[in-house]
Amino acid sequence: MQIGFIGLGKMGGNMVHRIQRDSEHTCVAFDFDPGKVAEAESHGASGAASIEEMVGQLEAPRAVWVMVPAGDPTEATVKALAELLEPGDLIVDGGNSNFHDDIRRAGELTSRNLHYVDVGTSGGIWGLDTGYCMMVGGHDEGVARLTPILDVLAPQPADGDPFGPGWRHFGAPGAGHYVKMVHNGVEYGLMQAYAEGFELMHGSRFDIDLKEVAGLWNRGSVVRSWLCELAELAFEAEGNDLEDLRGHVSDSGEGRWTIFDGIDQDVPTPVITAALYARFYSRGHGDYTHRMLAALRNQFGGHAVERSAGAG
Amino acid sequence: MQIGFIGLGKMGGNMVHRIQRDSEHTCVAFDFDPGKVAEAESHGASGAASIEEMVGQLEAPRAVWVMVPAGDPTEATVKALAELLEPGDLIVDGGNSNFHDDIRRAGELTSRNLHYVDVGTSGGIWGLDTGYCMMVGGHDEGVARLTPILDVLAPQPADGDPFGPGWRHFGAPGAGHYVKMVHNGVEYGLMQAYAEGFELMHGSRFDIDLKEVAGLWNRGSVVRSWLCELAELAFEAEGNDLEDLRGHVSDSGEGRWTIFDGIDQDVPTPVITAALYARFYSRGHGDYTHRMLAALRNQFGGHAVERSAGAG
Repeated sequence: MQIGFIGLGKMGGNMVHRIQRDSEHTCVAFDFDPGKVAEAESHGASGAASIEEMVGQLEAPRAVWVMVPAGDPTEATVKALAELLEPGDLIVDGGNSNFHDDIRRAGELTSRNLHYVDVGTSGGIWGLDTGYCMMVGGHDEGVARLTPILDVLAPQPADGDPFGPGWRHFGAPGAGHYVKMVHNGVEYGLMQAYAEGFELMHGSRFDIDLKEVAGLWNRGSVVRSWLCELAELAFEAEGNDLEDLRGHVSDSGEGRWTIFDGIDQDVPTPVITAALYARFYSRGHGDYTHRMLAALRNQFGGHAVERSAGAG
Repeated sequence: MQIGFIGLGKMGGNMVHRIQRDSEHTCVAFDFDPGKVAEAESHGASGAASIEEMVGQLEAPRAVWVMVPAGDPTEATVKALAELLEPGDLIVDGGNSNFHDDIRRAGELTSRNLHYVDVGTSGGIWGLDTGYCMMVGGHDEGVARLTPILDVLAPQPADGDPFGPGWRHFGAPGAGHYVKMVHNGVEYGLMQAYAEGFELMHGSRFDIDLKEVAGLWNRGSVVRSWLCELAELAFEAEGNDLEDLRGHVSDSGEGRWTIFDGIDQDVPTPVITAALYARFYSRGHGDYTHRMLAALRNQFGGHAVERSAGAG
């Protein structure tokens, strides 16, 4: 089949590459950066200089995969596409959209006889080779239409694994990004758990080789995981002291949404929440609290306060 | 080589089985339960009816692996053994001892010219077949003496894996149990992160098949892990609602020790701590706090309180 791709960054670009390399399907590729379009063409895709041109190259019923940053860029792209497409066409949001936006968008598009499928994707820069683990939401007809592409992008089953290609349709519109949102929330907790453990060992009275710990844990222990394999690679690349790294950790929103969903459901998520707050601390937030605590200890107990450099 | 084993429970018994099955080494096995001694004999081990008899069957320099519950049972067993052994003999503590106890014991035993090696073991009931991931502490001479046994018990390297058998010597006495303690603390955080995520999906507006989520996440996602594989097996065995299980979660101490160590080091461990506290809540602890909160809301705002059944 033919599929359009809008957004050829490290995810979208590699997806086009994988489809062209591993299947008979053909991609029509557009990005605002002509260099990325040229790169997609080098992998066999047909390049387009605009969304209009891309839509013009596709035969009805069309399918267009949107792989641009979540939020305004995705919203604007989906809106622009909807004006250009015809009833029966399909829009795929492969980014990290909030599932509430999927539900709204699917309603709007369905009323115009356009299909909408939301795909949450895990795998990052490793996906080109290992495949993209995809969590899919949407109505059955749109998902069925997209299945040949999902089958190529997904991790292929190991010999004898009856699970099939690594993607699943989890339900109504939004279900794909919902499961991906929770995946990312869980990921925050897993990462923080490892990080706390390695910090303890790093500062301990023992002289422990942390790369060896990560390596050992991946060979038969209960905590073996792909993240622990990445830890082994990180210690190999950076050294056990991680001394060249700045401990400043961003977040891209899904952890927050996971916690909001817990609050909406009255479900406590103490570990996922603590993991997000640890990232806030890593960025220096919470300092007013610390100054307030110092001020109060000074007031009630006369405890010494340290004044910041330059203060009177 | 010859090695004595004291404690033939699900860990010690399977270790004797693995050594007898997979190597030329021979075990002399003792347990207070004669049925377990008989089972070890059925795997080719030499049975002993008492610790004294076991020590008598071993040729000097002797090596004895103690695999009994941490705390008083291990302490009493090591003390009894130390009285029976001779200078140059080796005691291995393969249980989940606190590393502070290892440091003290190693000091006492070294002063009597006995070797002491602490081995933290991960792998549980799967170890018989996959091997035991072992974290080792102790002086070099004792660890060198034990190496042939560790090489057999450990997971064997996959083809082309230069890591070798899955055990590592991490340093001075106590280092083995210290790394194992942190391993278990990390494990608490990982488990709680998954559990929070699956609870959100279970209660969500979508009708999500959780066994399929666990299965999918294990095929190419960032959160793939052995624990997530166990989650897939658990949903298969128990159903997605886990309805036959009681949500009452024990802990065996290493999580607490990990947190104590964080406090000793002034290192925050918010995720590991939150995971332990979640287990306390699962056992009904913290209820007085909840009643106190209800009482205070009633006092300041006249908010309704619910009274327990049977109250006046």
